Amino acid sequence: MTLKGMGKTGDRFSMEFRIGYADCDAMGYLHHARYWEYFERVRTELLRANGFRYRDLEEQGVFFVVHKCACTFIRPVRYDDLVTVSAKVERITRTRVDHSYEFLRGDDLLCQATTTLACVGRDGKPRLAPDALWAGTD
Amino acid sequence: MTLKGMGKTGDRFSMEFRIGYADCDAMGYLHHARYWEYFERVRTELLRANGFRYRDLEEQGVFFVVHKCACTFIRPVRYDDLVTVSAKVERITRTRVDHSYEFLRGDDLLCQATTTLACVGRDGKPRLAPDALWAGTD
Amino acid sequence: MTLKGMGKTGDRFSMEFRIGYADCDAMGYLHHARYWEYFERVRTELLRANGFRYRDLEEQGVFFVVHKCACTFIRPVRYDDLVTVSAKVERITRTRVDHSYEFLRGDDLLCQATTTLACVGRDGKPRLAPDALWAGTD
Amino acid sequence: MTLKGMGKTGDRFSMEFRIGYADCDAMGYLHHARYWEYFERVRTELLRANGFRYRDLEEQGVFFVVHKCACTFIRPVRYDDLVTVSAKVERITRTRVDHSYEFLRGDDLLCQATTTLACVGRDGKPRLAPDALWAGTD
Repeated sequence: MTLKGMGKTGDRFSMEFRIGYADCDAMGYLHHARYWEYFERVRTELLRANGFRYRDLEEQGVFFVVHKCACTFIRPVRYDDLVTVSAKVERITRTRVDHSYEFLRGDDLLCQATTTLACVGRDGKPRLAPDALWAGTD
Repeated sequence: MTLKGMGKTGDRFSMEFRIGYADCDAMGYLHHARYWEYFERVRTELLRANGFRYRDLEEQGVFFVVHKCACTFIRPVRYDDLVTVSAKVERITRTRVDHSYEFLRGDDLLCQATTTLACVGRDGKPRLAPDALWAGTD
Repeated sequence: MTLKGMGKTGDRFSMEFRIGYADCDAMGYLHHARYWEYFERVRTELLRANGFRYRDLEEQGVFFVVHKCACTFIRPVRYDDLVTVSAKVERITRTRVDHSYEFLRGDDLLCQATTTLACVGRDGKPRLAPDALWAGTD
Repeated sequence: MTLKGMGKTGDRFSMEFRIGYADCDAMGYLHHARYWEYFERVRTELLRANGFRYRDLEEQGVFFVVHKCACTFIRPVRYDDLVTVSAKVERITRTRVDHSYEFLRGDDLLCQATTTLACVGRDGKPRLAPDALWAGTD
Protein backbone atom coordinates (compact mmCIF):
# COMPACT_ATOMS: atom_id res chain seq x y z
CA MET A 1 0.00 0.00 0.00
CA THR A 2 2.81 2.35 0.89
CA LEU A 3 5.26 2.68 -1.94
CA LYS A 4 8.58 3.25 -0.29
CA GLY A 5 11.13 3.72 -2.97
CA MET A 6 9.59 4.97 -6.14
CA GLY A 7 7.13 7.58 -4.96
CA LYS A 8 3.75 6.88 -3.45
CA THR A 9 1.46 5.56 -6.17
CA GLY A 10 -0.97 8.27 -7.07
CA ASP A 11 1.24 11.17 -6.06
CA ARG A 12 2.54 13.28 -8.88
CA PHE A 13 6.02 14.75 -8.43
CA SER A 14 6.82 17.96 -10.32
CA MET A 15 9.82 20.02 -11.32
CA GLU A 16 10.14 23.23 -13.27
CA PHE A 17 12.51 23.50 -16.23
CA ARG A 18 13.60 26.11 -18.70
CA ILE A 19 13.89 24.57 -22.18
CA GLY A 20 17.43 24.99 -23.49
CA TYR A 21 18.63 26.12 -26.91
CA ALA A 22 20.43 22.85 -27.59
CA ASP A 23 17.21 20.94 -26.78
CA CYS A 24 15.42 22.50 -29.72
CA ASP A 25 15.41 21.60 -33.38
CA ALA A 26 15.33 23.69 -36.51
CA MET A 27 11.64 24.51 -35.94
CA GLY A 28 12.57 26.02 -32.58
CA TYR A 29 10.59 23.25 -30.86
CA LEU A 30 11.80 20.89 -28.16
CA HIS A 31 12.95 17.86 -30.16
CA HIS A 32 10.97 14.72 -29.39
CA ALA A 33 14.14 12.84 -28.37
CA ARG A 34 14.83 15.36 -25.61
CA TYR A 35 11.56 14.89 -23.73
CA TRP A 36 12.91 11.59 -22.45
CA GLU A 37 15.80 13.35 -20.75
CA TYR A 38 13.40 15.61 -18.87
CA PHE A 39 11.22 12.66 -17.87
CA GLU A 40 14.33 10.85 -16.64
CA ARG A 41 15.42 13.80 -14.52
CA VAL A 42 12.04 14.00 -12.83
CA ARG A 43 11.92 10.22 -12.30
CA THR A 44 15.33 10.41 -10.64
CA GLU A 45 14.27 13.22 -8.30
CA LEU A 46 11.04 11.40 -7.46
CA LEU A 47 13.16 8.45 -6.42
CA ARG A 48 15.45 10.71 -4.39
CA ALA A 49 12.44 12.34 -2.71
CA ASN A 50 11.58 8.82 -1.52
CA GLY A 51 15.00 8.28 -0.05
CA PHE A 52 16.83 6.46 -2.84
CA ARG A 53 19.63 7.71 -5.02
CA TYR A 54 19.72 5.93 -8.36
CA ARG A 55 23.53 6.24 -8.45
CA ASP A 56 23.71 4.27 -5.20
CA LEU A 57 21.40 1.60 -6.58
CA GLU A 58 23.68 1.18 -9.58
CA GLU A 59 26.68 0.90 -7.29
CA GLN A 60 24.81 -1.92 -5.56
CA GLY A 61 24.19 -3.63 -8.91
CA VAL A 62 20.55 -2.58 -9.32
CA PHE A 63 19.77 -1.01 -12.69
CA PHE A 64 16.44 0.12 -14.09
CA VAL A 65 16.37 0.07 -17.87
CA VAL A 66 13.60 1.48 -20.02
CA HIS A 67 11.71 -1.45 -21.49
CA LYS A 68 8.82 0.45 -23.10
CA CYS A 69 8.00 4.08 -23.66
CA ALA A 70 5.24 6.03 -25.37
CA CYS A 71 4.43 9.71 -25.73
CA THR A 72 1.70 11.84 -27.24
CA PHE A 73 2.83 15.35 -28.12
CA ILE A 74 -0.19 17.61 -27.79
CA ARG A 75 1.19 21.15 -28.13
CA PRO A 76 4.71 22.16 -29.13
CA VAL A 77 7.21 23.17 -26.47
CA ARG A 78 9.48 26.00 -27.54
CA TYR A 79 12.93 27.28 -26.72
CA ASP A 80 13.03 29.21 -23.42
CA ASP A 81 9.57 28.01 -22.35
CA LEU A 82 9.19 27.49 -18.63
CA VAL A 83 7.52 24.12 -18.20
CA THR A 84 6.44 21.91 -15.33
CA VAL A 85 7.34 18.28 -15.84
CA SER A 86 5.75 15.71 -13.59
CA ALA A 87 6.14 11.98 -12.97
CA LYS A 88 3.95 9.53 -11.11
CA VAL A 89 4.38 5.87 -10.27
CA GLU A 90 1.40 4.06 -11.73
CA ARG A 91 2.31 0.50 -10.79
CA ILE A 92 5.24 -1.26 -9.19
CA THR A 93 6.12 -4.93 -8.94
CA ARG A 94 9.28 -6.75 -7.93
CA THR A 95 10.61 -6.53 -11.50
CA ARG A 96 8.86 -3.59 -13.16
CA VAL A 97 7.87 0.01 -12.53
CA ASP A 98 5.36 1.93 -14.65
CA HIS A 99 5.48 5.71 -14.62
CA SER A 100 3.33 8.34 -16.29
CA TYR A 101 4.57 11.83 -17.16
CA GLU A 102 3.23 15.19 -18.23
CA PHE A 103 4.54 18.52 -19.48
CA LEU A 104 2.50 21.56 -18.50
CA ARG A 105 2.98 25.22 -19.45
CA GLY A 106 0.71 27.09 -17.08
CA ASP A 107 -2.54 25.15 -17.37
CA ASP A 108 -1.83 23.85 -20.87
CA LEU A 109 -1.12 20.14 -21.10
CA LEU A 110 1.70 19.79 -23.64
CA CYS A 111 2.35 16.06 -23.67
CA GLN A 112 1.57 12.81 -21.87
CA ALA A 113 3.92 9.87 -21.69
CA THR A 114 4.46 6.51 -20.05
CA THR A 115 7.44 4.25 -19.45
CA THR A 116 7.90 0.74 -18.13
CA LEU A 117 11.23 0.16 -16.42
CA ALA A 118 12.67 -3.29 -15.89
CA CYS A 119 15.03 -4.12 -13.05
CA VAL A 120 18.26 -5.73 -14.26
CA GLY A 121 21.63 -6.61 -12.80
CA ARG A 122 25.07 -5.46 -13.87
CA ASP A 123 24.97 -8.22 -16.50
CA GLY A 124 21.79 -6.80 -18.03
CA LYS A 125 19.75 -9.81 -16.93
CA PRO A 126 16.40 -9.41 -15.11
CA ARG A 127 16.60 -9.44 -11.35
CA LEU A 128 14.30 -8.63 -8.44
CA ALA A 129 14.29 -5.08 -7.16
CA PRO A 130 15.52 -4.71 -3.57
CA ASP A 131 12.77 -5.18 -0.99
CA ALA A 132 13.15 -1.61 0.20
CA LEU A 133 11.94 -0.37 -3.18
CA TRP A 134 8.74 -2.33 -3.53
CA ALA A 135 7.82 -3.94 -0.19
CA GLY A 136 4.36 -3.12 1.00
CA THR A 137 3.31 -1.47 -2.21
CA ASP A 138 0.49 -3.77 -3.14
CA MET B 1 -2.05 2.79 -54.07
CA THR B 2 1.39 3.98 -55.04
CA LEU B 3 2.94 5.95 -52.28
CA LYS B 4 5.03 8.56 -53.97
CA GLY B 5 6.72 10.61 -51.35
CA MET B 6 7.07 8.67 -48.16
CA GLY B 7 8.21 5.27 -49.31
CA LYS B 8 5.97 2.62 -50.80
CA THR B 9 3.79 1.20 -48.03
CA GLY B 10 5.08 -2.21 -47.13
CA ASP B 11 8.68 -1.60 -48.18
CA ARG B 12 11.17 -1.43 -45.38
CA PHE B 13 14.09 0.96 -45.88
CA SER B 14 17.33 0.17 -44.01
CA MET B 15 20.58 1.86 -43.06
CA GLU B 16 23.58 0.67 -41.13
CA PHE B 17 24.95 2.67 -38.19
CA ARG B 18 27.78 2.42 -35.73
CA ILE B 19 26.61 3.42 -32.25
CA GLY B 20 28.63 6.37 -30.99
CA TYR B 21 30.22 6.92 -27.58
CA ALA B 22 28.17 10.03 -26.90
CA ASP B 23 24.98 8.07 -27.68
CA CYS B 24 25.55 5.79 -24.72
CA ASP B 25 24.78 6.20 -21.06
CA ALA B 26 26.64 5.17 -17.94
CA MET B 27 25.64 1.53 -18.48
CA GLY B 28 27.38 1.64 -21.88
CA TYR B 29 23.98 1.16 -23.55
CA LEU B 30 22.44 3.31 -26.24
CA HIS B 31 20.32 5.75 -24.24
CA HIS B 32 16.60 5.45 -24.97
CA ALA B 33 16.40 9.12 -26.00
CA ARG B 34 18.92 8.55 -28.78
CA TYR B 35 16.96 5.86 -30.62
CA TRP B 36 14.66 8.58 -31.91
CA GLU B 37 17.55 10.32 -33.65
CA TYR B 38 18.41 7.14 -35.52
CA PHE B 39 14.77 6.57 -36.49
CA GLU B 40 14.61 10.16 -37.71
CA ARG B 41 17.71 9.74 -39.86
CA VAL B 42 16.28 6.64 -41.53
CA ARG B 43 12.88 8.29 -42.05
CA THR B 44 14.62 11.22 -43.72
CA GLU B 45 16.59 8.97 -46.06
CA LEU B 46 13.47 6.94 -46.86
CA LEU B 47 11.84 10.20 -47.91
CA ARG B 48 14.89 11.15 -49.97
CA ALA B 49 14.90 7.73 -51.64
CA ASN B 50 11.40 8.60 -52.77
CA GLY B 51 12.48 11.88 -54.30
CA PHE B 52 11.77 14.33 -51.50
CA ARG B 53 14.19 16.25 -49.38
CA TYR B 54 12.69 17.19 -46.02
CA ARG B 55 14.73 20.41 -45.96
CA ASP B 56 13.05 21.46 -49.21
CA LEU B 57 9.62 20.67 -47.79
CA GLU B 58 10.33 22.89 -44.81
CA GLU B 59 11.44 25.70 -47.11
CA GLN B 60 8.07 25.33 -48.82
CA GLY B 61 6.30 25.60 -45.46
CA VAL B 62 5.55 21.88 -45.03
CA PHE B 63 6.59 20.47 -41.65
CA PHE B 64 6.05 17.02 -40.23
CA VAL B 65 6.01 16.99 -36.45
CA VAL B 66 5.99 13.90 -34.28
CA HIS B 67 2.54 13.60 -32.77
CA LYS B 68 2.89 10.16 -31.17
CA CYS B 69 5.72 7.75 -30.61
CA ALA B 70 6.19 4.41 -28.88
CA CYS B 71 9.06 1.99 -28.55
CA THR B 72 9.70 -1.41 -27.02
CA PHE B 73 13.35 -2.04 -26.17
CA ILE B 74 13.96 -5.76 -26.47
CA ARG B 75 17.72 -6.19 -26.17
CA PRO B 76 20.27 -3.54 -25.21
CA VAL B 77 22.31 -1.81 -27.91
CA ARG B 78 25.87 -1.14 -26.87
CA TYR B 79 28.60 1.33 -27.73
CA ASP B 80 30.33 0.51 -31.03
CA ASP B 81 27.65 -2.00 -32.06
CA LEU B 82 26.96 -2.11 -35.78
CA VAL B 83 23.20 -2.03 -36.17
CA THR B 84 20.72 -1.97 -39.02
CA VAL B 85 17.93 0.52 -38.49
CA SER B 86 14.88 0.29 -40.71
CA ALA B 87 11.76 2.36 -41.31
CA LYS B 88 8.57 1.55 -43.15
CA VAL B 89 5.51 3.64 -43.98
CA GLU B 90 2.53 1.86 -42.45
CA ARG B 91 -0.19 4.33 -43.39
CA ILE B 92 -0.42 7.72 -45.01
CA THR B 93 -3.26 10.19 -45.24
CA ARG B 94 -3.43 13.85 -46.26
CA THR B 95 -2.58 14.93 -42.72
CA ARG B 96 -0.77 12.02 -41.04
CA VAL B 97 1.97 9.47 -41.72
CA ASP B 98 2.52 6.37 -39.59
CA HIS B 99 5.92 4.70 -39.62
CA SER B 100 7.26 1.59 -37.96
CA TYR B 101 10.94 1.06 -37.10
CA GLU B 102 13.31 -1.67 -36.05
CA PHE B 103 16.87 -2.05 -34.83
CA LEU B 104 18.60 -5.28 -35.81
CA ARG B 105 22.08 -6.56 -34.89
CA GLY B 106 22.65 -9.45 -37.24
CA ASP B 107 19.41 -11.41 -36.92
CA ASP B 108 18.63 -10.16 -33.43
CA LEU B 109 15.69 -7.81 -33.16
CA LEU B 110 16.73 -5.14 -30.67
CA CYS B 111 13.72 -2.82 -30.62
CA GLN B 112 10.47 -2.02 -32.38
CA ALA B 113 8.95 1.43 -32.56
CA THR B 114 6.20 3.48 -34.18
CA THR B 115 5.59 7.15 -34.82
CA THR B 116 2.68 9.20 -36.11
CA LEU B 117 3.70 12.40 -37.84
CA ALA B 118 1.28 15.28 -38.37
CA CYS B 119 1.65 17.73 -41.22
CA VAL B 120 1.73 21.35 -40.04
CA GLY B 121 2.52 24.72 -41.53
CA ARG B 122 5.14 27.25 -40.49
CA ASP B 123 2.67 28.46 -37.84
CA GLY B 124 2.46 24.98 -36.30
CA LYS B 125 -1.18 24.58 -37.37
CA PRO B 126 -2.40 21.42 -39.14
CA ARG B 127 -2.35 21.58 -42.93
CA LEU B 128 -2.75 19.16 -45.80
CA ALA B 129 0.39 17.48 -47.09
CA PRO B 130 1.26 18.38 -50.69
CA ASP B 131 -0.46 16.18 -53.28
CA ALA B 132 2.86 14.82 -54.47
CA LEU B 133 3.43 13.20 -51.08
CA TRP B 134 0.21 11.31 -50.70
CA ALA B 135 -1.65 11.25 -54.02
CA GLY B 136 -2.66 7.82 -55.16
CA THR B 137 -1.91 6.22 -51.83
CA ASP B 138 -5.54 5.98 -50.83
CA MET C 1 32.25 50.76 -18.38
CA THR C 2 28.87 49.53 -17.30
CA LEU C 3 27.89 46.47 -19.24
CA LYS C 4 24.14 46.59 -19.61
CA GLY C 5 23.07 43.57 -21.45
CA MET C 6 25.52 40.78 -21.03
CA GLY C 7 26.36 40.91 -17.36
CA LYS C 8 28.69 43.38 -15.73
CA THR C 9 32.24 42.55 -16.76
CA GLY C 10 33.96 40.97 -13.83
CA ASP C 11 30.86 39.57 -12.19
CA ARG C 12 30.54 35.83 -12.24
CA PHE C 13 27.02 34.46 -12.53
CA SER C 14 26.40 30.97 -11.12
CA MET C 15 23.78 28.24 -11.28
CA GLU C 16 23.57 24.84 -9.67
CA PHE C 17 22.89 21.73 -11.75
CA ARG C 18 22.45 18.05 -11.18
CA ILE C 19 24.22 16.07 -13.92
CA GLY C 20 21.73 13.87 -15.77
CA TYR C 21 22.02 10.23 -16.79
CA ALA C 22 21.70 11.04 -20.48
CA ASP C 23 24.53 13.57 -20.16
CA CYS C 24 27.00 10.86 -19.28
CA ASP C 25 28.96 8.48 -21.43
CA ALA C 26 29.94 4.86 -20.99
CA MET C 27 32.57 5.85 -18.39
CA GLY C 28 29.81 7.43 -16.30
CA TYR C 29 31.42 10.83 -16.87
CA LEU C 30 29.75 13.94 -18.22
CA HIS C 31 30.52 13.74 -21.93
CA HIS C 32 32.66 16.61 -23.20
CA ALA C 33 30.00 17.63 -25.75
CA ARG C 34 27.48 18.22 -22.99
CA TYR C 35 29.47 20.82 -21.09
CA TRP C 36 28.61 23.32 -23.81
CA GLU C 37 24.90 22.92 -23.10
CA TYR C 38 25.45 23.78 -19.46
CA PHE C 39 27.60 26.79 -20.36
CA GLU C 40 24.89 27.93 -22.76
CA ARG C 41 22.19 27.67 -20.08
CA VAL C 42 24.20 29.80 -17.68
CA ARG C 43 25.04 32.35 -20.39
CA THR C 44 21.34 32.66 -21.19
CA GLU C 45 20.42 33.22 -17.56
CA LEU C 46 23.22 35.74 -17.14
CA LEU C 47 21.71 37.65 -20.06
CA ARG C 48 18.23 37.37 -18.52
CA ALA C 49 19.56 38.62 -15.17
CA ASN C 50 20.66 41.70 -17.07
CA GLY C 51 17.24 42.28 -18.52
CA PHE C 52 17.49 40.59 -21.92
CA ARG C 53 15.80 37.45 -23.09
CA TYR C 54 17.75 35.76 -25.87
CA ARG C 55 14.52 34.51 -27.45
CA ASP C 56 13.36 38.12 -27.80
CA LEU C 57 16.66 39.12 -29.38
CA GLU C 58 16.26 36.39 -31.96
CA GLU C 59 12.72 37.56 -32.70
CA GLN C 60 14.25 41.00 -33.35
CA GLY C 61 16.78 39.46 -35.74
CA VAL C 62 19.77 39.52 -33.37
CA PHE C 63 21.59 36.20 -33.10
CA PHE C 64 24.75 35.36 -31.20
CA VAL C 65 26.59 32.42 -32.70
CA VAL C 66 29.56 30.67 -31.15
CA HIS C 67 32.63 31.61 -33.16
CA LYS C 68 35.29 30.05 -30.95
CA CYS C 69 35.29 27.82 -27.93
CA ALA C 70 37.90 26.11 -25.78
CA CYS C 71 37.78 24.03 -22.64
CA THR C 72 40.23 22.36 -20.27
CA PHE C 73 38.76 19.42 -18.38
CA ILE C 74 40.56 19.21 -15.04
CA ARG C 75 38.61 16.62 -13.05
CA PRO C 76 35.85 14.35 -14.29
CA VAL C 77 32.22 15.23 -13.60
CA ARG C 78 30.08 12.21 -12.85
CA TYR C 79 26.44 11.24 -13.13
CA ASP C 80 24.31 12.76 -10.36
CA ASP C 81 27.04 15.16 -9.25
CA LEU C 82 25.76 18.49 -8.01
CA VAL C 83 27.85 21.16 -9.72
CA THR C 84 28.00 24.92 -9.81
CA VAL C 85 28.44 26.30 -13.30
CA SER C 86 29.41 29.93 -13.69
CA ALA C 87 29.77 32.37 -16.57
CA LYS C 88 31.38 35.78 -16.73
CA VAL C 89 31.61 38.36 -19.49
CA GLU C 90 35.28 39.00 -20.11
CA ARG C 91 35.00 41.47 -22.97
CA ILE C 92 32.26 42.95 -25.09
CA THR C 93 32.37 44.94 -28.30
CA ARG C 94 29.73 45.93 -30.84
CA THR C 95 30.21 42.64 -32.69
CA ARG C 96 31.68 40.14 -30.22
CA VAL C 97 31.28 38.92 -26.65
CA ASP C 98 33.86 36.84 -24.80
CA HIS C 99 32.76 34.72 -21.86
CA SER C 100 34.65 32.52 -19.44
CA TYR C 101 33.11 29.56 -17.62
CA GLU C 102 33.84 27.20 -14.76
CA PHE C 103 32.44 24.02 -13.24
CA LEU C 104 32.90 23.67 -9.49
CA ARG C 105 31.98 20.77 -7.20
CA GLY C 106 32.28 22.18 -3.73
CA ASP C 107 35.68 23.90 -3.87
CA ASP C 108 37.06 21.67 -6.61
CA LEU C 109 37.56 23.34 -9.96
CA LEU C 110 36.44 20.79 -12.56
CA CYS C 111 36.90 22.67 -15.82
CA GLN C 112 37.57 26.08 -17.32
CA ALA C 113 36.27 27.24 -20.66
CA THR C 114 35.94 30.26 -22.92
CA THR C 115 33.74 31.21 -25.85
CA THR C 116 33.67 34.06 -28.32
CA LEU C 117 30.22 34.85 -29.66
CA ALA C 118 29.68 36.82 -32.85
CA CYS C 119 26.58 38.89 -33.48
CA VAL C 120 24.85 37.97 -36.75
CA GLY C 121 21.54 38.72 -38.43
CA ARG C 122 18.84 36.32 -39.56
CA ASP C 123 20.90 35.81 -42.74
CA GLY C 124 23.93 34.66 -40.72
CA LYS C 125 25.94 37.75 -41.72
CA PRO C 126 27.79 39.84 -39.12
CA ARG C 127 25.85 42.77 -37.71
CA LEU C 128 26.23 45.21 -34.86
CA ALA C 129 24.70 44.24 -31.54
CA PRO C 130 21.87 46.55 -30.41
CA ASP C 131 23.09 49.60 -28.47
CA ALA C 132 21.29 48.45 -25.35
CA LEU C 133 23.56 45.43 -25.16
CA TRP C 134 26.91 47.08 -25.34
CA ALA C 135 26.51 50.84 -24.85
CA GLY C 136 28.72 52.27 -22.19
CA THR C 137 30.86 49.19 -21.93
CA ASP C 138 33.76 50.72 -23.85
CA MET D 1 58.24 7.47 -36.49
CA THR D 2 55.60 4.98 -37.44
CA LEU D 3 52.46 5.59 -35.47
CA LYS D 4 50.81 2.27 -35.06
CA GLY D 5 47.64 2.74 -33.13
CA MET D 6 46.32 6.21 -33.63
CA GLY D 7 46.82 6.83 -37.31
CA LYS D 8 50.09 7.75 -38.95
CA THR D 9 51.01 11.30 -37.96
CA GLY D 10 50.40 13.55 -40.92
CA ASP D 11 47.70 11.43 -42.50
CA ARG D 12 44.23 12.88 -42.42
CA PHE D 13 41.39 10.38 -42.09
CA SER D 14 37.99 11.43 -43.47
CA MET D 15 34.36 10.40 -43.27
CA GLU D 16 31.24 11.79 -44.85
CA PHE D 17 28.18 12.64 -42.75
CA ARG D 18 24.71 13.96 -43.29
CA ILE D 19 23.81 16.48 -40.57
CA GLY D 20 20.72 15.30 -38.69
CA TYR D 21 17.65 17.27 -37.64
CA ALA D 22 18.23 16.62 -33.95
CA ASP D 23 21.80 17.95 -34.31
CA CYS D 24 20.54 21.39 -35.22
CA ASP D 25 19.36 24.25 -33.08
CA ALA D 26 16.60 26.80 -33.52
CA MET D 27 18.69 28.65 -36.14
CA GLY D 28 18.77 25.45 -38.22
CA TYR D 29 22.54 25.29 -37.67
CA LEU D 30 24.54 22.39 -36.32
CA HIS D 31 24.74 23.16 -32.60
CA HIS D 32 28.30 23.74 -31.37
CA ALA D 33 27.97 20.95 -28.80
CA ARG D 34 27.31 18.40 -31.53
CA TYR D 35 30.54 18.94 -33.47
CA TRP D 36 32.36 17.03 -30.76
CA GLU D 37 30.27 13.93 -31.43
CA TYR D 38 31.27 14.00 -35.09
CA PHE D 39 34.93 14.50 -34.22
CA GLU D 40 34.71 11.59 -31.81
CA ARG D 41 33.20 9.31 -34.45
CA VAL D 42 35.99 10.08 -36.88
CA ARG D 43 38.67 9.66 -34.20
CA THR D 44 37.23 6.25 -33.36
CA GLU D 45 37.25 5.13 -37.00
CA LEU D 46 40.79 6.45 -37.45
CA LEU D 47 41.80 4.26 -34.54
CA ARG D 48 39.93 1.29 -36.02
CA ALA D 49 41.62 1.87 -39.39
CA ASN D 50 44.89 1.42 -37.52
CA GLY D 51 43.81 -1.87 -36.04
CA PHE D 52 42.47 -0.84 -32.66
CA ARG D 53 38.91 -0.87 -31.43
CA TYR D 54 38.35 1.65 -28.68
CA ARG D 55 35.75 -0.62 -27.05
CA ASP D 56 38.40 -3.32 -26.72
CA LEU D 57 40.84 -0.86 -25.19
CA GLU D 58 38.26 0.08 -22.57
CA GLU D 59 37.66 -3.58 -21.80
CA GLN D 60 41.41 -3.82 -21.18
CA GLY D 61 41.26 -0.85 -18.81
CA VAL D 62 42.67 1.74 -21.23
CA PHE D 63 40.57 4.90 -21.49
CA PHE D 64 41.28 8.09 -23.40
CA VAL D 65 39.55 11.08 -21.90
CA VAL D 66 39.37 14.51 -23.47
CA HIS D 67 41.65 16.80 -21.50
CA LYS D 68 41.50 19.87 -23.72
CA CYS D 69 39.50 20.90 -26.73
CA ALA D 70 39.17 23.99 -28.90
CA CYS D 71 37.24 24.83 -32.02
CA THR D 72 36.87 27.76 -34.40
CA PHE D 73 33.57 27.81 -36.26
CA ILE D 74 34.20 29.47 -39.61
CA ARG D 75 31.00 28.95 -41.59
CA PRO D 76 27.69 27.56 -40.30
CA VAL D 77 26.79 23.94 -40.97
CA ARG D 78 23.11 23.46 -41.68
CA TYR D 79 20.56 20.69 -41.36
CA ASP D 80 20.87 18.07 -44.12
CA ASP D 81 24.27 19.35 -45.26
CA LEU D 82 26.61 16.68 -46.51
CA VAL D 83 29.95 17.29 -44.83
CA THR D 84 33.37 15.68 -44.76
CA VAL D 85 34.82 15.45 -41.28
CA SER D 86 38.48 14.62 -40.91
CA ALA D 87 40.84 13.82 -38.06
CA LYS D 88 44.61 13.68 -37.93
CA VAL D 89 47.03 12.69 -35.20
CA GLU D 90 49.30 15.65 -34.60
CA ARG D 91 51.39 14.27 -31.76
CA ILE D 92 51.44 11.18 -29.62
CA THR D 93 53.28 10.37 -26.42
CA ARG D 94 52.96 7.58 -23.87
CA THR D 95 50.29 9.56 -22.00
CA ARG D 96 48.75 12.01 -24.48
CA VAL D 97 47.43 12.18 -28.03
CA ASP D 98 46.78 15.42 -29.89
CA HIS D 99 44.36 15.41 -32.82
CA SER D 100 43.27 18.09 -35.24
CA TYR D 101 39.90 18.08 -37.03
CA GLU D 102 38.14 19.81 -39.89
CA PHE D 103 34.66 20.04 -41.35
CA LEU D 104 34.52 20.59 -45.11
CA ARG D 105 31.50 21.11 -47.38
CA GLY D 106 32.88 20.69 -50.87
CA ASP D 107 35.98 22.91 -50.76
CA ASP D 108 34.67 25.18 -48.02
CA LEU D 109 36.41 24.87 -44.69
CA LEU D 110 33.65 25.09 -42.06
CA CYS D 111 35.56 24.64 -38.83
CA GLN D 112 38.92 23.66 -37.35
CA ALA D 113 39.37 21.99 -34.01
CA THR D 114 41.90 20.32 -31.75
CA THR D 115 41.75 17.95 -28.82
CA THR D 116 44.26 16.57 -26.35
CA LEU D 117 43.38 13.14 -24.99
CA ALA D 118 44.89 11.77 -21.81
CA CYS D 119 45.29 8.07 -21.16
CA VAL D 120 43.69 6.98 -17.88
CA GLY D 121 42.83 3.73 -16.17
CA ARG D 122 39.47 2.47 -14.99
CA ASP D 123 40.00 4.53 -11.84
CA GLY D 124 40.36 7.74 -13.86
CA LYS D 125 44.05 8.07 -12.90
CA PRO D 126 46.75 8.74 -15.54
CA ARG D 127 48.42 5.65 -16.93
CA LEU D 128 50.73 4.82 -19.80
CA ALA D 129 49.14 3.91 -23.11
CA PRO D 130 49.85 0.33 -24.23
CA ASP D 131 53.10 -0.03 -26.20
CA ALA D 132 51.20 -1.10 -29.29
CA LEU D 133 49.60 2.31 -29.50
CA TRP D 134 52.62 4.52 -29.35
CA ALA D 135 55.78 2.42 -29.83
CA GLY D 136 58.06 3.72 -32.50
CA THR D 137 56.25 6.98 -32.87
CA ASP D 138 58.81 9.03 -30.96
